[in-house]
Amino acid sequence: MLPTGSTNSFDMIPTLKDVKSAVQRIKPYVHNTPVLTSTTIDQMMNATVFFKCENFQRMGAFKIRGATNAILQLSEEERARGVITHSSGNFAAALALAARSLVTKAYIVMPSNAPVVKREAVVGYGAQVIECAPTLESRESTMKVYQKKTGATFVHPSNDINVILGNSTAVWEMAKVVENLDVVIAPVGGGGLLAGTALATNHLNYYIETIGAEPFGADDAYLSLKTGKIQPCMNPKTIADGLKTQLGDINFPIIQKFVSKIIRVEESEIIHAMKFIWERLKIVIEPSSAVAVAAMFRNSSEFKKRKVGVILSGGNVDLANLPF
Amino acid sequence: MLPTGSTNSFDMIPTLKDVKSAVQRIKPYVHNTPVLTSTTIDQMMNATVFFKCENFQRMGAFKIRGATNAILQLSEEERARGVITHSSGNFAAALALAARSLVTKAYIVMPSNAPVVKREAVVGYGAQVIECAPTLESRESTMKVYQKKTGATFVHPSNDINVILGNSTAVWEMAKVVENLDVVIAPVGGGGLLAGTALATNHLNYYIETIGAEPFGADDAYLSLKTGKIQPCMNPKTIADGLKTQLGDINFPIIQKFVSKIIRVEESEIIHAMKFIWERLKIVIEPSSAVAVAAMFRNSSEFKKRKVGVILSGGNVDLANLPF
Repeated sequence: MLPTGSTNSFDMIPTLKDVKSAVQRIKPYVHNTPVLTSTTIDQMMNATVFFKCENFQRMGAFKIRGATNAILQLSEEERARGVITHSSGNFAAALALAARSLVTKAYIVMPSNAPVVKREAVVGYGAQVIECAPTLESRESTMKVYQKKTGATFVHPSNDINVILGNSTAVWEMAKVVENLDVVIAPVGGGGLLAGTALATNHLNYYIETIGAEPFGADDAYLSLKTGKIQPCMNPKTIADGLKTQLGDINFPIIQKFVSKIIRVEESEIIHAMKFIWERLKIVIEPSSAVAVAAMFRNSSEFKKRKVGVILSGGNVDLANLPF
Repeated sequence: MLPTGSTNSFDMIPTLKDVKSAVQRIKPYVHNTPVLTSTTIDQMMNATVFFKCENFQRMGAFKIRGATNAILQLSEEERARGVITHSSGNFAAALALAARSLVTKAYIVMPSNAPVVKREAVVGYGAQVIECAPTLESRESTMKVYQKKTGATFVHPSNDINVILGNSTAVWEMAKVVENLDVVIAPVGGGGLLAGTALATNHLNYYIETIGAEPFGADDAYLSLKTGKIQPCMNPKTIADGLKTQLGDINFPIIQKFVSKIIRVEESEIIHAMKFIWERLKIVIEPSSAVAVAAMFRNSSEFKKRKVGVILSGGNVDLANLPF
């Protein structure tokens, strides 16, 4: 067992057994989401493309996987005291829903300017929302005050080894229904999904390539890989709001070790890819998911005649505020 | 075999064998679309609801089923001369695509004001588009001129027994994966989907109820059922443009015999249902599909504790022109 919130080193990279255990552990609490294909896209790409539809996941995103795995790794005592995180996005809802399923108290620190619908979703899942000022400093200090007060365990949205292991189960499921994948593409923001995907993929088959996809407007993971050092995510500007977060020090060594490269995409490519998937696959994906599709379209020649897996990370969008 | 374009009478209502043959006949040319469920909707409805996702069908709607079955019922000679229809909507694309799959020539009469995207889709499938003035009279006269000129067989988008039989295969597939359905809801416009659904449902199990769903703004099927006589669809006004068409004399006796009732819904209910399905199921459905969902929501008390099947008829929407 790997302690939640532990720091990482190369020696601590989880094993095949760790991934398999996570798959079994969270199975009763998450959907084994469908894998979709499209003849149009295959013909366009001259490839065989498989979409792992985490937009159909509980609460609409892969994040429930990591949240569930992290809570299930706590001791009985820890669980009795609850879990706490700070997030205004999908992880807030994920930890709230996972906690409800596992009869655990959840405290979610959210900035006062968080969208009302997101706040309501978290409250709807039975979590306690703690409002803070809309700055990273306020988030962290508020979180620490409440963590001390409640004794709740902090679960980081992406930079946590048990969250990463939970996230690794999506590609694992895909590989169980699609044989002989050549390459998998996942978006990268905080790095929790990309690290988990790369980890599982590497354990499944050393020869499956894992590629990250990132907006030019928030390319800290690209720069970090290039320089070999975590680079700060300065003033990220992208429609893919799930990818604005900073790469973490637990994810980074895993990404360095197992990810072959990161493809960056323009905002217009993200919007085009999002619209394309809605129109052709008839499914609702959020901009962060579209980043992975856009990366595939952008570098289409390198995927020719390959079996490509794309992780569609989530489908939570504000329909009243679409970019097309 | 039932001749395409035949008129109907109670004696000619297709048998269980006819439905089964249609299922086998079109199988290689259509998708067996997935059936989706939603815990949220089940809890809300206090029922078990299954969505047959014809929005994931080839060309984005159930219409490919009827079109394929109609072409496959033609003699070799007839097929050599091709097929012709008039439609500005999904059936135009359906007949074009079915014809391409079956190496048959298709002529599609389309009004000059048809949306460019729809025209392009038809051309993309290799059909010949014949432009006419945007009136019903012009459509029919143009169609007759070309039918005479080419010898192509006319396939009506909905009022054709082989189209109805093709459409009956959607609910048949659903019933093969969902046991013991209590009731099935399908939208009604021309009546081809509702008649096919009711027919298959009745042959599957006499005790499964079939309900139609129709906008108040185009309620000719409701009025026809009520008066026992086909009523004209006068100045239909609804966002569900697929349901603006006139009920047919081949569909009507089947609907009269096997459909228990038609639930009418307001435009605001259609838009709400459409948005709800997009947000919760993360799938793209067109307004006509949302009519069936809206009918279920409107009369929710009668579906309590029942196993409900809903036919989501299609997912072709103009993303640049959404009602929300």
